[in-house]
Amino acid sequence: MTGPIITLLTDFGTRDGYVAAMKGVILDIVPNAVLVDAGHDVQAHDIQAAGWALAQYAFTFPAGTLHLAVVDPGVGSSRDLLVATASNRIFLAPNNGLLHWVTRSAAGFSVHRIRDDICRPEGKSTTFHGRDILAYAAGRLARGFDTIDSMTEPLEELVIPDWGEVRSQGGMLVGEVIHVDRFGNLITNVQRPHLQETRWRTLTIQAGGGIISGIQKAYSDVRRGEPLALFGSHDHLELAVNRGSAAESMGLKRGARVLVQIEL
Amino acid sequence: MTGPIITLLTDFGTRDGYVAAMKGVILDIVPNAVLVDAGHDVQAHDIQAAGWALAQYAFTFPAGTLHLAVVDPGVGSSRDLLVATASNRIFLAPNNGLLHWVTRSAAGFSVHRIRDDICRPEGKSTTFHGRDILAYAAGRLARGFDTIDSMTEPLEELVIPDWGEVRSQGGMLVGEVIHVDRFGNLITNVQRPHLQETRWRTLTIQAGGGIISGIQKAYSDVRRGEPLALFGSHDHLELAVNRGSAAESMGLKRGARVLVQIEL
Amino acid sequence: MTGPIITLLTDFGTRDGYVAAMKGVILDIVPNAVLVDAGHDVQAHDIQAAGWALAQYAFTFPAGTLHLAVVDPGVGSSRDLLVATASNRIFLAPNNGLLHWVTRSAAGFSVHRIRDDICRPEGKSTTFHGRDILAYAAGRLARGFDTIDSMTEPLEELVIPDWGEVRSQGGMLVGEVIHVDRFGNLITNVQRPHLQETRWRTLTIQAGGGIISGIQKAYSDVRRGEPLALFGSHDHLELAVNRGSAAESMGLKRGARVLVQIEL
Repeated sequence: MTGPIITLLTDFGTRDGYVAAMKGVILDIVPNAVLVDAGHDVQAHDIQAAGWALAQYAFTFPAGTLHLAVVDPGVGSSRDLLVATASNRIFLAPNNGLLHWVTRSAAGFSVHRIRDDICRPEGKSTTFHGRDILAYAAGRLARGFDTIDSMTEPLEELVIPDWGEVRSQGGMLVGEVIHVDRFGNLITNVQRPHLQETRWRTLTIQAGGGIISGIQKAYSDVRRGEPLALFGSHDHLELAVNRGSAAESMGLKRGARVLVQIEL
Repeated sequence: MTGPIITLLTDFGTRDGYVAAMKGVILDIVPNAVLVDAGHDVQAHDIQAAGWALAQYAFTFPAGTLHLAVVDPGVGSSRDLLVATASNRIFLAPNNGLLHWVTRSAAGFSVHRIRDDICRPEGKSTTFHGRDILAYAAGRLARGFDTIDSMTEPLEELVIPDWGEVRSQGGMLVGEVIHVDRFGNLITNVQRPHLQETRWRTLTIQAGGGIISGIQKAYSDVRRGEPLALFGSHDHLELAVNRGSAAESMGLKRGARVLVQIEL
Repeated sequence: MTGPIITLLTDFGTRDGYVAAMKGVILDIVPNAVLVDAGHDVQAHDIQAAGWALAQYAFTFPAGTLHLAVVDPGVGSSRDLLVATASNRIFLAPNNGLLHWVTRSAAGFSVHRIRDDICRPEGKSTTFHGRDILAYAAGRLARGFDTIDSMTEPLEELVIPDWGEVRSQGGMLVGEVIHVDRFGNLITNVQRPHLQETRWRTLTIQAGGGIISGIQKAYSDVRRGEPLALFGSHDHLELAVNRGSAAESMGLKRGARVLVQIEL
């Protein structure tokens, strides 16, 4: 019998031993857990980037997978810690917006608050709830020592971050860059349905002083070093440069405005 | 039956395939090993940082866990390779101080020297004992092909690093920064007992020209961007900035002097 | 029964969730797979560095291991995806030279092209074949749902990269730096047989304006900070600096010319 799958996403890096401390706590409770590193190089305190990353993999894992995500600048304050379920996966994370993209793409989202008395027998520090509460709670759930019901209480209010919605304005779509990936691809909040994809005749994208015409199928549809727009693996509109970095060559960061003009 | 847990900590990074080479050696001997990446982004040759990281997770893992730690600037020289046991965990590492913090926090420490004839059948290089000796030895131990006794001999002298002890001077405690973590938190060698915590009335910390008064419970006890002192998850005195980097804003590095004045 | 071992090497980094998306696809098909991170910090699009890294670990793993390697700047173009076998390990990678060093060091290399209809039921994006094809194919092979024969067709032409061969010229060997590792060691394409090792009396290496005499056994055979040459763990001639970075102190990068003069 294969053990329960538990993924870990943090902004801890791996050079301080913090992630490993969490892994130890989990394996001490559930020795046959299948621990999967999702990533620990999210920029420190960058909830938005972590939330985006989480949505890229949450639902490729089998039902029953437990996803632990710890980017927690409010550790030690009164912020809640959550256990959520969405499309038959279980999520543990602080109540700070980290689950935003997951909740948007999932069916049947429900969320609960971890009770204040839940922590490992050694007690809880004020600076490392990833180890003292979340890893411990994940282990207990995975092992079957607790259920979501037995360790949670109702949540008062889920934090809904304000990360920019697409607007219509003067015949244009006004979107923004919501994630810049390792390759410098600029991922926007514009999705397929926004573009009424099958109906437009011409489409022009303005961003950072540059203009891109039309939507390509693949990076290689333009010459090396040329900019393009396409729908990425996440079905969001993405600005890219073939074998290059759009972030660098267009000088854009997260939050940059992206205008899309469509002629039907 | 779950296989033996083996953690890996190195300064190898992951872009050259060196860590994976060690994983292959282990899995070739003990296919059901549970390999756990503790971290590979320790700065090259930084024994002190690796030793600190190791102590953060060594004892959250279940008894019987085998911790492999390879930061080995003396590879190929006559330095010893060690197998140590502490609090029922097993450690394999070079004899260069890497086990310092573990030995300080553990009960029942004993240490042995790996014999010179222990190496994988392919032979040993002079530059990669992590692969040729330590991973091989870890695999043999984990599989039960060898015992500590069968692969070691007495150690002549354990290297004790000189990483700074807290001193009392002119009514002050003189400590120093012993680790700077990914978030820029400055971890000092001052521990709870040094501060006679329950007894002081006022406490002032001087470091790098700045002054911090009192000890907080959590980062969020001060305003965003403000400095503070607290006991971190490791029970050492830590200088931090709420949602910021103390290392950056105070301009301090490892080795920086930290003065603590207590009025009882 | 231990599950099949599948290693992953990519240039994806770990902060965007891309690697985790692949892991989810695999575990969804073969829940008892033993996933091994080989590394994800290869520089973006650097096929040559990835190919070198792969060769460092491919054959330390047990026979039957499945090595997945995704550095794929041509994703979405008509480039092939490969399944290869070499020395009883299985490799999945784009047809772009990534398997070059593996094929050179392996016995019994054979290679096939993954058919265009192979992709996960969700369909294939044009930007992430690591997830939609390669991880899926790896999972199917590992689980036994497919065989190499059932998912491939003959390959027309294997891409053979032009990464520099050692030449003889004017009584000298002319080689080059083919990899710079994390420590700044300069690994060259000169191998033991080139040097007729047992026969030379004096040997001089010229690189980047510096001259190194003789070949040492270990880094520690010279003083700290001094340059040296030795055969690394891969049996290639390597230029290094004891406890320092040869790349930095000699100012050399990949591709730099290395001249070796031998007197027999």
